Amino acid sequence: MSSPPPEAPSPEDIGSRYARIRGDTLTLAAPLCAQDAQVQSMAQASPTKWHLAHVTWFFETFVLERFEHPFAPFDPRYRVLFNSYYQGVGAMHPRHQRGLITHPTWEDVLRYRSAVDARMQALLHACPDRDGLAGLVTLGLHHEQQHQELVLTDIQHVLSFSPGHPPYAAPGPRAAHGAGPLRWFGYAGGLIECGHDPARDGTFCFDNETPRHRTYCAPFEIASRPASCAEYLAFIEDGGYQRAELWLSLGWEWLCDGARRAPLYWQNQDGAWTHHTLYGTVTLDPHAPVCHLSYFEADAYARWAGARLPTEFEWEHAARSLRAGTGAHLGGQGIFHPLAAPDDDDQPAQMFGDVWEWTQSSYAAYPGYRPLPGAVGEYNGKFMCNQYVLRGGSCATPAGHIRASYRNFFAPDAQWQFCGVRLARDAAPALTAPT
Amino acid sequence: MSSPPPEAPSPEDIGSRYARIRGDTLTLAAPLCAQDAQVQSMAQASPTKWHLAHVTWFFETFVLERFEHPFAPFDPRYRVLFNSYYQGVGAMHPRHQRGLITHPTWEDVLRYRSAVDARMQALLHACPDRDGLAGLVTLGLHHEQQHQELVLTDIQHVLSFSPGHPPYAAPGPRAAHGAGPLRWFGYAGGLIECGHDPARDGTFCFDNETPRHRTYCAPFEIASRPASCAEYLAFIEDGGYQRAELWLSLGWEWLCDGARRAPLYWQNQDGAWTHHTLYGTVTLDPHAPVCHLSYFEADAYARWAGARLPTEFEWEHAARSLRAGTGAHLGGQGIFHPLAAPDDDDQPAQMFGDVWEWTQSSYAAYPGYRPLPGAVGEYNGKFMCNQYVLRGGSCATPAGHIRASYRNFFAPDAQWQFCGVRLARDAAPALTAPT
Amino acid sequence: MSSPPPEAPSPEDIGSRYARIRGDTLTLAAPLCAQDAQVQSMAQASPTKWHLAHVTWFFETFVLERFEHPFAPFDPRYRVLFNSYYQGVGAMHPRHQRGLITHPTWEDVLRYRSAVDARMQALLHACPDRDGLAGLVTLGLHHEQQHQELVLTDIQHVLSFSPGHPPYAAPGPRAAHGAGPLRWFGYAGGLIECGHDPARDGTFCFDNETPRHRTYCAPFEIASRPASCAEYLAFIEDGGYQRAELWLSLGWEWLCDGARRAPLYWQNQDGAWTHHTLYGTVTLDPHAPVCHLSYFEADAYARWAGARLPTEFEWEHAARSLRAGTGAHLGGQGIFHPLAAPDDDDQPAQMFGDVWEWTQSSYAAYPGYRPLPGAVGEYNGKFMCNQYVLRGGSCATPAGHIRASYRNFFAPDAQWQFCGVRLARDAAPALTAPT
Amino acid sequence: MSSPPPEAPSPEDIGSRYARIRGDTLTLAAPLCAQDAQVQSMAQASPTKWHLAHVTWFFETFVLERFEHPFAPFDPRYRVLFNSYYQGVGAMHPRHQRGLITHPTWEDVLRYRSAVDARMQALLHACPDRDGLAGLVTLGLHHEQQHQELVLTDIQHVLSFSPGHPPYAAPGPRAAHGAGPLRWFGYAGGLIECGHDPARDGTFCFDNETPRHRTYCAPFEIASRPASCAEYLAFIEDGGYQRAELWLSLGWEWLCDGARRAPLYWQNQDGAWTHHTLYGTVTLDPHAPVCHLSYFEADAYARWAGARLPTEFEWEHAARSLRAGTGAHLGGQGIFHPLAAPDDDDQPAQMFGDVWEWTQSSYAAYPGYRPLPGAVGEYNGKFMCNQYVLRGGSCATPAGHIRASYRNFFAPDAQWQFCGVRLARDAAPALTAPT
Repeated sequence: MSSPPPEAPSPEDIGSRYARIRGDTLTLAAPLCAQDAQVQSMAQASPTKWHLAHVTWFFETFVLERFEHPFAPFDPRYRVLFNSYYQGVGAMHPRHQRGLITHPTWEDVLRYRSAVDARMQALLHACPDRDGLAGLVTLGLHHEQQHQELVLTDIQHVLSFSPGHPPYAAPGPRAAHGAGPLRWFGYAGGLIECGHDPARDGTFCFDNETPRHRTYCAPFEIASRPASCAEYLAFIEDGGYQRAELWLSLGWEWLCDGARRAPLYWQNQDGAWTHHTLYGTVTLDPHAPVCHLSYFEADAYARWAGARLPTEFEWEHAARSLRAGTGAHLGGQGIFHPLAAPDDDDQPAQMFGDVWEWTQSSYAAYPGYRPLPGAVGEYNGKFMCNQYVLRGGSCATPAGHIRASYRNFFAPDAQWQFCGVRLARDAAPALTAPT
Repeated sequence: MSSPPPEAPSPEDIGSRYARIRGDTLTLAAPLCAQDAQVQSMAQASPTKWHLAHVTWFFETFVLERFEHPFAPFDPRYRVLFNSYYQGVGAMHPRHQRGLITHPTWEDVLRYRSAVDARMQALLHACPDRDGLAGLVTLGLHHEQQHQELVLTDIQHVLSFSPGHPPYAAPGPRAAHGAGPLRWFGYAGGLIECGHDPARDGTFCFDNETPRHRTYCAPFEIASRPASCAEYLAFIEDGGYQRAELWLSLGWEWLCDGARRAPLYWQNQDGAWTHHTLYGTVTLDPHAPVCHLSYFEADAYARWAGARLPTEFEWEHAARSLRAGTGAHLGGQGIFHPLAAPDDDDQPAQMFGDVWEWTQSSYAAYPGYRPLPGAVGEYNGKFMCNQYVLRGGSCATPAGHIRASYRNFFAPDAQWQFCGVRLARDAAPALTAPT
Repeated sequence: MSSPPPEAPSPEDIGSRYARIRGDTLTLAAPLCAQDAQVQSMAQASPTKWHLAHVTWFFETFVLERFEHPFAPFDPRYRVLFNSYYQGVGAMHPRHQRGLITHPTWEDVLRYRSAVDARMQALLHACPDRDGLAGLVTLGLHHEQQHQELVLTDIQHVLSFSPGHPPYAAPGPRAAHGAGPLRWFGYAGGLIECGHDPARDGTFCFDNETPRHRTYCAPFEIASRPASCAEYLAFIEDGGYQRAELWLSLGWEWLCDGARRAPLYWQNQDGAWTHHTLYGTVTLDPHAPVCHLSYFEADAYARWAGARLPTEFEWEHAARSLRAGTGAHLGGQGIFHPLAAPDDDDQPAQMFGDVWEWTQSSYAAYPGYRPLPGAVGEYNGKFMCNQYVLRGGSCATPAGHIRASYRNFFAPDAQWQFCGVRLARDAAPALTAPT
Repeated sequence: MSSPPPEAPSPEDIGSRYARIRGDTLTLAAPLCAQDAQVQSMAQASPTKWHLAHVTWFFETFVLERFEHPFAPFDPRYRVLFNSYYQGVGAMHPRHQRGLITHPTWEDVLRYRSAVDARMQALLHACPDRDGLAGLVTLGLHHEQQHQELVLTDIQHVLSFSPGHPPYAAPGPRAAHGAGPLRWFGYAGGLIECGHDPARDGTFCFDNETPRHRTYCAPFEIASRPASCAEYLAFIEDGGYQRAELWLSLGWEWLCDGARRAPLYWQNQDGAWTHHTLYGTVTLDPHAPVCHLSYFEADAYARWAGARLPTEFEWEHAARSLRAGTGAHLGGQGIFHPLAAPDDDDQPAQMFGDVWEWTQSSYAAYPGYRPLPGAVGEYNGKFMCNQYVLRGGSCATPAGHIRASYRNFFAPDAQWQFCGVRLARDAAPALTAPT
């Protein structure tokens, strides 16, 4: 991957980028009625309305409040209401009660967005990059894009509680081809570098991707594509959900407590499998990557398959050597579910897009990691406990938002994201070329 | 109370009554946006949307399905979705997930109401009273009126989770007068009759009000009005919420677990008390009846006051001897909160209306009680455990829906209804006149 | 039941009564090792060691502390440790952590008993009845007897968690006869008197049995004996645990949550029923009264049988007219499980003893009820909420501790006491003699 | 650390080692009465009695059952009762109900130990090392030693629930010296090797310490000793438990939920700090290492101190370069609490012994890790999720049981072990010698 030229934001650039990305969020919310946008289906997921307000709050609190003079809040109550988890900003509305906020209404929140957008544009034209303004705006836009993905995964969860699982969107395309046989690509490993170096790379990254640092990888192999639904079905049919020896101890407890027998959203009626997707309830595409797996399921599947999950460093190492080409991302094509992997390539397919890939790596600070100064330092660092890293983005990740060093993270029981599994395995030291 | 003439429903009568009461429900919902109508603030309360659908389901399931030929359901999925608790009808949507049903939408539910209303009117004109049709429709309309009260109490609870506690309605009138000093009315008691006798009374009642039966009451006295906010404040200021000896054991646990210091919706800011009402947040009217008390609070207050709660039989006995005159009810005057009691009367004031009055009586079957046949028999009987009887209706009870024998019931920790307390005490046998 | 002569405690009498009843407690504990006596199997049950200390604490706190001069506590820490629920006495050790008190040890507690016993005897000889001493000692001895029953029911629960359910005692006798067919005894009812009048009766009772008062009962019938295991098995085999229409709503939830299919301690292995008793695991005696029923089960069984539970007033009325003769009680015969009812009688059998009989009456204050003054007033009154009355005592109730007016009470889901069910039903007014 | 000669177990050697270690367990239990040994204070801790039976079960199940012919179980019910978590062996008694097993009794368990010991000795003499017998026995003895530590930490927890916190042992020695000022030792890092290589090292290790493998460490520094109580007090007094910015998000939740203000067992009475130890309640030694910290507390303390936790690889790297010398271990000197660190050394003190040291490393499989074959493979591998690695052993770890590659692991909220904190920090690349 050649190094792109350093990002050089001009007043126009950042203003139009702001307008485009903020507009994308509204486009995503367009199919929803105010009722869909209101409710909260579990503590970990938020209402669409709350998402749209919170990302606006981010700009108001971290940009306008600092750079706009004189500053007056749109509504002082919003400071608490739409604060997600920033202790440095003050009090926050209880997370599990976000769905109970009927006032401000959907319309109020849209007005809040418009007002903040107007003020942001004025600010960006007046003082394009004073004292880190551009950096904070860029952070806010990447933050907005993260919530675009959450809008989709959270509304999918909401709609799964209505009878018949109403669709968010019209069915998108299915891949014309099937998934080919699983192959393995080998890597020599050694002392490699991981993480993002903003100074060298000149592009944005989150603080948790830094600093770029050395790590050692033994030779390894990585699968040519994520595991498919057909492959995962073989695991189920081989008693995968009944065999304790395949599971982590916490995973087995989780499985027993929930009487789980299949991934989230899967339903078996008279032997036929369907699943709830953003297209509504559809039959399973055996060729498409399996998704909505917890870490526990991904780990058990890998053990059953005689393989393992990659480390996040193996994954990043493999991803950095890719020549272009990625899978499905969010961005206009009407694709809201992973597609079957192409098979004709001489490199791993779908490393980016389609499904987030669980790694075996606990989410932890890189050596020398420093959070951002101030309250935005709470963005990433304080969550580095009992979560696992996912890599590569999904069909719901905005195109252009993902990169090789990007670290997503969720608790090991989280299933409602587009999370899949790509197998890895140890390689004999000699193996350095694709098998 | 003189016996009214027996109800004699004609096709027109019941049809217009149906239209009027069904219309009242829509009127109540009119101030709400679809988002307000969507959410569920706790398992015991339901979304307005669900209420409006459920009462419609009642007519569809218990009337249309039986009397309409051929019958086809409006939507077969509604049978499960809007079944509250009738095991005899089949499966039901989990109660605590009623707020997650975004589809059918608010508009769908309004269409459902219109469709069922049209079919009901057709049916009522075609076969006015075949095989108990009128009886079931009457039951359905009283059921609808019960849910009218719940629409109000549940939306008040919902709105209490939005910042500033937005109002449901414009502030209603306050009483021109203050509450007078508490006086006592004495009753000789003896072997009295309680309950409703449909054959004799000729009017509707729920099955739990039957059969009319004899019971014995020792001489007792009953307070001239419900306890006022000022009186309840004296209890608070006397350490009422800190003195274990005033509370039932379960009540003390409940108080400690919730760190409670005042009734639901009360807030003390710098020494001044306000409370959240359907008018929004307002200052406390010291003359108005205290409401949003749990049974635990009503019981502790009575003990502190050197009195006790009345039994439901004492209450009914006193209520039956009233000459006309009741308190505030639901019905067009824009009153959505209890008003101060009038003082100029020679009988207990506000026995009906303003606040439900907790009695000390556990909700139980009357001697010889028989539930209605079929699934509607689940309406009342199966809840006769760990609940306490309330009497008299509230400002949110539709006018005409209440009567002396009417038994409402809630668990002893329920606060979100308009529940208050009227004191009672034992009397020396000679006391038979007001003191 | 003829009125016994008034109790006239002399110094000797009360001293020997004290010695005998305190000794009975030790006899009951004798079969247990210190480990059995240590553990707590659920929050509602207490360790034997704690029981033995608590009843001693009762005498130390309510008698010695008041009457002994100068008074010094055996160990000041015991005041908190062995206080059950008397807020008026001060702090208390958390109830669910009683089993974690390994120090004081079993031996310490036995020493505590000896020391308090010696001081009590000295006090009783010195000042036989000053200022209510005798009354408090009598209360303490009845308290001790209540805990004797709890020692048995709680240790049965403890032993049910050890493999093979080790016996507490060698198997006791089984009745030589089977239970005869169920018959009905009719009562005219009317305005009856219930409760205990200490002044008139001259004997001890708990405050919750007072005052004696009038109540009205319609004519009723009561079964000739408690329901037998065979009869309850017919309910099970008729799908009793699968038919929602037979259950109270809370009962059905309780049943579903616990996946219950039979009474506590029952086990079905390959079609054969055994149950865990104080004799260890034994085969079910189909003739013996069914026991370890919750209120929910008793109520559902009665509904299935086309009958109902008696009220506590019906029960007491029937019990007062008995000529002598009761069932099995605690007291030397080595009987620790209910026996089959005798059949040859012209009055209801086993009204006293064998199994406590659930009534449909919520545990509530009698009209005019006043708790005892001081902290002992917390003995009964504060529990009058969400509990149901049981009558008649069981095989684990000390002989002489029970009476017609005695009111036991438990929450409707409690099963670990010896609780059974005697059916009742409404009678035509004419029915006043056994059918 | 020079490579010790390979362990060469002879029949005599392993037999006497078996006798010695098994005897040590009984010595540890000797101060306890059967009641102490019975109870379970939380699900994560086990009764002493259960520990003593479980380690015996380990030999019976994994050694005798395989090598003894014919084999008959001591008691077939023990297979379930004392199985901790080995799904491969079959069913197991619920973990949180281990304290309810009063039968088998303490005496039964001692008999079980004797019987298995006799059979083990006979087996060891008959077939010293057939088919991996010696390996399994060695594993069983290390397993026994792990439970020796748990016997101590679990009984400390039990005793903390009795009033006055009775001592397990007479007070041990305090260090004659105070803890010196904290200094830093620097390490160049680089590509280092970690883990145990049984073939090369010739000594026992657990499977989770293998395979030995390369990893990369940037230059780092490590503190000269664990943090002392005085240092931790400074953190408390600086508002450490009130400042959200110092805590992981999960840690802050944990702190708020438990209203925590100090480490487990610490008590502040009128400004003076005491803590509950195995010596009973004693005043805090400001020089001794702070212990009973959760990972959350260790992490927050390090952040407050401007440092961080070491990785487990940094720790191991530093530990491997030590010249002899360790801290306090279990083994005869009557020391049951960490001692102040000596200060006169030119290397980090107390790397071994006194307190386990939290590392920032999530407990995970080493590259190429393979669990042991069969059910013993469940020993370590299945717990590799949501736990953090601790290194170095404590005052309760048997001498000789610890080594540089030893990996202990607990959930981040666990406090009841002897867990402390040694600070680490990044170093400039040039720093390779002690500062």
